[in-house]
Amino acid sequence: MYSIRCRAAAGRYTRHLRVSPTPYTTLSQPACIALLRSAPQKRQFSFTQSPQRSTSGSSSSSKSSRRPEFFPTATAAVSDLHNGITILSQGFGLCGVPETLLDAIRTRDLRDLTVVSNNAGARDCGLAKLSENGQIAKMIGSFIGTNKNMVKAFLEGRMSVELCPQGTIVERLRAAGAGIPAFYTRTGVNTHVQTGEIPARYDAQGKAGERAVVEFGRPRETRVFEGQMFLMEHALHGDVAILRAWKVDKAGNCVFRSTTRNYATVMAKAAKMTIVEAEQVVELGEIDPDQVHLPGIFVDRVVPATSDKHIEILKVDQGGNADEATASEDEIKRIRIAKRAAKELKDGSYVNLGVGIPTLAPSYLPEGTHVTLHSENGILGMGPYPASKAEADPDTVNAGKETVTLIKGASVFDTADSFAMIRGGHIDVSILGALQVSASGDLANYMVPGKVFNGMGGAMDLVSNPDETKVVVTTYHTDKNGKSKVVEQCDLPLTGRNVVSTIITELCVFEVDRGRGGLTLTELAEGVDVETVKQKTDAAFAIAPELQTMS
Amino acid sequence: MYSIRCRAAAGRYTRHLRVSPTPYTTLSQPACIALLRSAPQKRQFSFTQSPQRSTSGSSSSSKSSRRPEFFPTATAAVSDLHNGITILSQGFGLCGVPETLLDAIRTRDLRDLTVVSNNAGARDCGLAKLSENGQIAKMIGSFIGTNKNMVKAFLEGRMSVELCPQGTIVERLRAAGAGIPAFYTRTGVNTHVQTGEIPARYDAQGKAGERAVVEFGRPRETRVFEGQMFLMEHALHGDVAILRAWKVDKAGNCVFRSTTRNYATVMAKAAKMTIVEAEQVVELGEIDPDQVHLPGIFVDRVVPATSDKHIEILKVDQGGNADEATASEDEIKRIRIAKRAAKELKDGSYVNLGVGIPTLAPSYLPEGTHVTLHSENGILGMGPYPASKAEADPDTVNAGKETVTLIKGASVFDTADSFAMIRGGHIDVSILGALQVSASGDLANYMVPGKVFNGMGGAMDLVSNPDETKVVVTTYHTDKNGKSKVVEQCDLPLTGRNVVSTIITELCVFEVDRGRGGLTLTELAEGVDVETVKQKTDAAFAIAPELQTMS
Repeated sequence: MYSIRCRAAAGRYTRHLRVSPTPYTTLSQPACIALLRSAPQKRQFSFTQSPQRSTSGSSSSSKSSRRPEFFPTATAAVSDLHNGITILSQGFGLCGVPETLLDAIRTRDLRDLTVVSNNAGARDCGLAKLSENGQIAKMIGSFIGTNKNMVKAFLEGRMSVELCPQGTIVERLRAAGAGIPAFYTRTGVNTHVQTGEIPARYDAQGKAGERAVVEFGRPRETRVFEGQMFLMEHALHGDVAILRAWKVDKAGNCVFRSTTRNYATVMAKAAKMTIVEAEQVVELGEIDPDQVHLPGIFVDRVVPATSDKHIEILKVDQGGNADEATASEDEIKRIRIAKRAAKELKDGSYVNLGVGIPTLAPSYLPEGTHVTLHSENGILGMGPYPASKAEADPDTVNAGKETVTLIKGASVFDTADSFAMIRGGHIDVSILGALQVSASGDLANYMVPGKVFNGMGGAMDLVSNPDETKVVVTTYHTDKNGKSKVVEQCDLPLTGRNVVSTIITELCVFEVDRGRGGLTLTELAEGVDVETVKQKTDAAFAIAPELQTMS
Repeated sequence: MYSIRCRAAAGRYTRHLRVSPTPYTTLSQPACIALLRSAPQKRQFSFTQSPQRSTSGSSSSSKSSRRPEFFPTATAAVSDLHNGITILSQGFGLCGVPETLLDAIRTRDLRDLTVVSNNAGARDCGLAKLSENGQIAKMIGSFIGTNKNMVKAFLEGRMSVELCPQGTIVERLRAAGAGIPAFYTRTGVNTHVQTGEIPARYDAQGKAGERAVVEFGRPRETRVFEGQMFLMEHALHGDVAILRAWKVDKAGNCVFRSTTRNYATVMAKAAKMTIVEAEQVVELGEIDPDQVHLPGIFVDRVVPATSDKHIEILKVDQGGNADEATASEDEIKRIRIAKRAAKELKDGSYVNLGVGIPTLAPSYLPEGTHVTLHSENGILGMGPYPASKAEADPDTVNAGKETVTLIKGASVFDTADSFAMIRGGHIDVSILGALQVSASGDLANYMVPGKVFNGMGGAMDLVSNPDETKVVVTTYHTDKNGKSKVVEQCDLPLTGRNVVSTIITELCVFEVDRGRGGLTLTELAEGVDVETVKQKTDAAFAIAPELQTMS
């Protein structure tokens, strides 16, 4: 493999000197590297300080020869990057993350970076490599909760964070690559995304936990189409995109393995320059034209992937469901909720399940009922956890960043396609957890001001089309302080307004009248009476004429 | 192959009856078909008369079991379609066209259809099957010129046509599937697309060639982003999408071969129901999840593809360039223009070449200069015409609908991705022909009111980002009546305003100052003097201090 990369790199060098390309293969490896190290760069990129470029751009002069260049190391490929640039960094959780290029950017100690990425890394992997080193001035992402250092830096006013729903980020990136300056989406309507109330920067001075917000998000322009409100979202451009690919050919065509594809294809198209770390470099013709995920036109530089890939959450199949006889009180609650949630999953349906209780539901499907599980990073046909640690594949994770498998008949796609599927209403049912859920179907499940600032991930997208995708909430009836999670009005920031159709708790089931507002109690768990539900519920509700037993 | 389809279809039947699926393989072919014919349909679709559905839709009740159904014939699969529906019909030219389903729709004699398709068929193939039979009330497409019957029916007021740029149609379809009600694009700015002046319907009464336009296109809302004007375009939904796929598995996952992918992926997502004719049906697990082009969630019905596929324009490689010694006067002009156009193609660049003279340019590239050819239906890395008729592949055509080959290192993608690449400014140079080109870089090349009404195809998209994608016009200096094609102001409808940077004719080369407007004569063909150019040019021009000889 090395020799291939080396030949390609030498090819670049010889092209530069305008000599015949035939001697490529005659170079020894050290000679090849020596040549490369001495070769001047063909293209010196000049980056502006501004992350936004004009939609039509300014000049094509830097594009005179756009075939990808092959570099011997990531360090060489990032040597001309400047402080202050905007980097689009592929990856979902730690899956598909360009660890080699992040190591090189850390080594270069580039500063004052704006980084766009779904997540912010975890432990000392992914973007944590840069944030821990103080290199990130601003993060644009949908979920930063797994990077505790970054959350701390944000709350202490040492950096800015622009939280943006997952589907909106990926569509903004796609728009940037596609010459579309703006588009409309339902995602975020009637939330703090619309009003711009999500904190973007805290005061660097003051007592911990009491610092003032010195910068908020941008309010979004709204517009009504066919009686429904939408938000206008703008294209999101970058200076440099960094990707990790499974196979790259000499023309720069990339193939991504399994769920590593996530943001790679859109980020490459949204950046002025794209650098790919390749697990394998192959010859022209070795990738079937029908199987290219990212055409070489979007790839400027290729380096070998040498840093390890990581598993964020290793999960293996425990076999069978929890034993109800020996289960803890909490487990019993969870099982009861999950069993009832399973009834929302009709045979043949396509289903998205949030992290936690929702993921237990399919275990309780009656025999003969088959549903297809969607995972918003880009799977349709998600299978169980791998049978063993040895079988866990870092390239195949679900939206909870856990190792999973794919069933026969599964398909994998990029995150833009995945959220198009969600927003477009192609998923039948979405089951989510809640911090609070209201009598009119409002859902709050992503933020507790001043306490929890993780990010909304894909939740706002998953509830953005509740007419086509039924939204079911599964939740404990009360929080750990005994306070009702079913409320008349949510006081936490909303994930969506009037979106929930059914609420399942360990005590009962409520159907929500999304049109007029209002709950109807339709089922009671065994041994639970209406009075108990009334006591524990901070919202009025009607009682169905034929109250069923929840099972 | 038949047995597989038959088993699958029987599977549907047995599922319906709630019996075990194991007897699938024991059914004989006739028994299987008999069973299927007697089986009630699991889903009865009810279509509204309106092609537009609410962006959020109305109900998910029809989606209770969405796994694809396998039908023994196309006729059975279209039996419940109604008159007046909107059909999204895949295909570019005659490539990837669902001929089996079109035959079935013709047999059913469905009437009053709105059809969305890039083209309108040709000869007696593709949509010509329906238009010739008077079944199409309205056509939404980018190019109808190859269907002479349809052009006649339109000009005689027997049907409506909504002409829409190719990239805009495909992006509107993508938006519909992705829950995006509207987006902004540069394509069509300062043209009749923006003003709504393109005729949509002629009076059914009156003298041929003099009928009044009784309906025009919709004017587009405009908006300025970062100093540039854009048009707002709306999502385009359909009732039924009809596709032809190469391989379909039991979950409905589709793989398309080569350039047949074109509109398939976006149309399937934009319709309430998608019917796929499959060249092969394969078992679950036979398609790699990473290689699925269209996930099964978007597929409702599958039928066997039984109608022949067609080649619209069979082209084979003639070997070498035209012999200049024996060339006709016209050929000499064309060669001269093509040779000069080749100089616009820098080593390593990505290039889109219009039909006609532009396609000759690569034949005149100096040795060692390599460019990658883009074709807007969805190829990067287009190769020469096939060596022989036997090697011509109906699944691999270029934007001129001609049979072509793919080079090693090529990639194929859908038309939405292809136009994202174009609008996004990723192509370095676009070379097009002209009916007229003005001193300020305005280009007219798609319509002569009252005479030529073919459609703009992808031309408006190809000139939509002239700062990133250099637009070069190659054209004869004068038309067949001796009238200058280089003019002060175009009087024909524009393809784009201020978009052309360089004009190459058989007489000379003009550089255009796109900012301030105005031509500079920079090169003269051998034997041509400035006076001749002045006589034959209906525009003023400056003369470069160092006038070169064109070569």
